[in-house]
Amino acid sequence: MNEDCIFCQIVTKKIPSKNVFEDERYLAFLDIFPISNGHTIIIPKKHYRNLEDIPEQELAEIIKIVKKLAVLIHKKLKIDGYNVLQNNFESAGQEINHYHIHIIPRNKNDQKFKLKIPRNQATGEELENTLKLLLS
Amino acid sequence: MNEDCIFCQIVTKKIPSKNVFEDERYLAFLDIFPISNGHTIIIPKKHYRNLEDIPEQELAEIIKIVKKLAVLIHKKLKIDGYNVLQNNFESAGQEINHYHIHIIPRNKNDQKFKLKIPRNQATGEELENTLKLLLS
Repeated sequence: MNEDCIFCQIVTKKIPSKNVFEDERYLAFLDIFPISNGHTIIIPKKHYRNLEDIPEQELAEIIKIVKKLAVLIHKKLKIDGYNVLQNNFESAGQEINHYHIHIIPRNKNDQKFKLKIPRNQATGEELENTLKLLLS
Repeated sequence: MNEDCIFCQIVTKKIPSKNVFEDERYLAFLDIFPISNGHTIIIPKKHYRNLEDIPEQELAEIIKIVKKLAVLIHKKLKIDGYNVLQNNFESAGQEINHYHIHIIPRNKNDQKFKLKIPRNQATGEELENTLKLLLS
């Protein structure tokens, strides 16, 4: 529990939330700034900053809940697809420093946020240099 | 094994790849169209279409590998952060129909792909209606 953390305050009900799922250790609620209708946030109730801090056991548990909720959202909201997104550190767009996973519903006709990111094919040499660093 | 699947062909070495990690059941390799340097794809060797098809046990295993690789990439490539992204179905940008997770390195000075997606605060009524559908 981190008293300054908005998600910890949602866990303790100090801040209200629209909960899609809750058990002893995990909570899922609707994002109040949804990218799309049904945008859901899944968190461990314990405060971990990011992927590097959450223990493996809880990670394995939370991802199974994400799967169940994705199936539920897909079916109940009749969406065409969804992104599962988890940001780590400020440079990656992490705004709340409490580990959380987004399920972001998508629809075929939704042009609102086509994620068209420039991607250029890497040369063999570039990939080789990166791999050397990673395996060093 | 799906013979038309590019990732299955990477698993069987029919298509070469720069592998960051490999064991009996999982494989991680550098994306040849990287969003950023070190962009890595993690897959189960078995062909599952998406999050709804991969069994819970393998999901729990692969997410632990993602965590280990994220720590490795963070440290070795000296990046500031990273997104963990997993797309489901075409409308969500899934291009290869073999379950895969992206680790996308990010840096403070990288303006290339600021994901500025329009997000408006939802009304209580909107959230309530969505929740009703989900819990129905």
